[in-house]
Amino acid sequence: MVPAVTSRHTAVPGSTERTRVRRLPERAVTEIAALHAVLDACLIAHVSVTDDDGQPYVLPVAFARRGDEVVFHGSTGSRLFRSLADGRATCLTVTRLDGLVLARSAFESSMNYRSAMVLGVACRLTGDDELDALRTITEHLLPGRWADCRPPSPKERAATMTLALSLAESSVKIRTGGPEDVPEDITDPVYASVWAGTVPLAESFGEPIRSEEAQPDAAVPSYISDWSRA
Amino acid sequence: MVPAVTSRHTAVPGSTERTRVRRLPERAVTEIAALHAVLDACLIAHVSVTDDDGQPYVLPVAFARRGDEVVFHGSTGSRLFRSLADGRATCLTVTRLDGLVLARSAFESSMNYRSAMVLGVACRLTGDDELDALRTITEHLLPGRWADCRPPSPKERAATMTLALSLAESSVKIRTGGPEDVPEDITDPVYASVWAGTVPLAESFGEPIRSEEAQPDAAVPSYISDWSRA
Repeated sequence: MVPAVTSRHTAVPGSTERTRVRRLPERAVTEIAALHAVLDACLIAHVSVTDDDGQPYVLPVAFARRGDEVVFHGSTGSRLFRSLADGRATCLTVTRLDGLVLARSAFESSMNYRSAMVLGVACRLTGDDELDALRTITEHLLPGRWADCRPPSPKERAATMTLALSLAESSVKIRTGGPEDVPEDITDPVYASVWAGTVPLAESFGEPIRSEEAQPDAAVPSYISDWSRA
Repeated sequence: MVPAVTSRHTAVPGSTERTRVRRLPERAVTEIAALHAVLDACLIAHVSVTDDDGQPYVLPVAFARRGDEVVFHGSTGSRLFRSLADGRATCLTVTRLDGLVLARSAFESSMNYRSAMVLGVACRLTGDDELDALRTITEHLLPGRWADCRPPSPKERAATMTLALSLAESSVKIRTGGPEDVPEDITDPVYASVWAGTVPLAESFGEPIRSEEAQPDAAVPSYISDWSRA
């Protein structure tokens, strides 16, 4: 994916055809572990839904992996979410950007990233299963939070639609390392001297900011102050 | 979008119906400025394409805003990208996550973020117009890079498909600030003492890492070492 101008890596996401999306049983353990790790490293996902006219929408959602599925939620008032619950095909993609990859040529420039794509039909969760999924999403974002905060009331639960999507049909793509310059550029009298390499990109949490309505002496709990995402 | 468990903010992306996506001429100058700013603040986009069977795919792509459109590129070998060039409806969404919003309740917990969604039909660029778009994408990721690196050769250009999508039909959604606890939670004997507030999330570039093939004495150009994205 996601090259600075285009590179051989561009082709990969652009050309992710259904036939290249592999089913879970075909996969090596290491590939499943990589898929799980990429999903676990991302805070949000982008989910597609298509309306009756064939217009796709891509929506950012909070999500979490729960075993061999991903779970995410929206409002029961959302027409698009309801169409997902009704069985319309979807795609959920996560991408974590790890850096710019600067080759001597624009074409070979790229990005380092981790991305996972999950295809399929989501199903709506109910009862304790839904509550467990909501807990899993909260804990994915901030481990330790669920036990501390107020769980959803029946009225809040009624306003929430929680969906699960199996990882059975999914793909994972990871790019790491430096640029792959073409040999001619490395010896070219003009372009050999162009700086080539990578510029890492990191996400980090800053100092927690207390709500104005919080008690003035409320200390930041350690599960918040200690939380970071490598 | 993207609440920790669900909140009134969940409803927004989940319920982004076509009727709520506003056309550019209807908009206030400040809203167009906000749309542009959100697009300019994001390094990658997620683009949807739907295949002949109605299966959507969400692909991460490098992109840039160019005036009142976004431009992005892929491989000419990609069946999905070719279907976009052939006029299939698409959606391009960008999301920049700015922090976790921790309310006393799971339901009111959320995230701070900036997101923009663009709907429409992309058109393929050619000639100097395409070259300008490729330059714009490179410069979006790293201003100053285009003048330094080797521009694409005719062969590299032939392998690249560059698309433009008008901002005419688009939406922008920004959440900032602290949690909005329900009054009962703020006075509740159990939950009043739950820490509430925000945990900011920042993206930052790290130290550039020189390619093994780079000249050992190559200094990092200032356009790289000075570049950061607020």
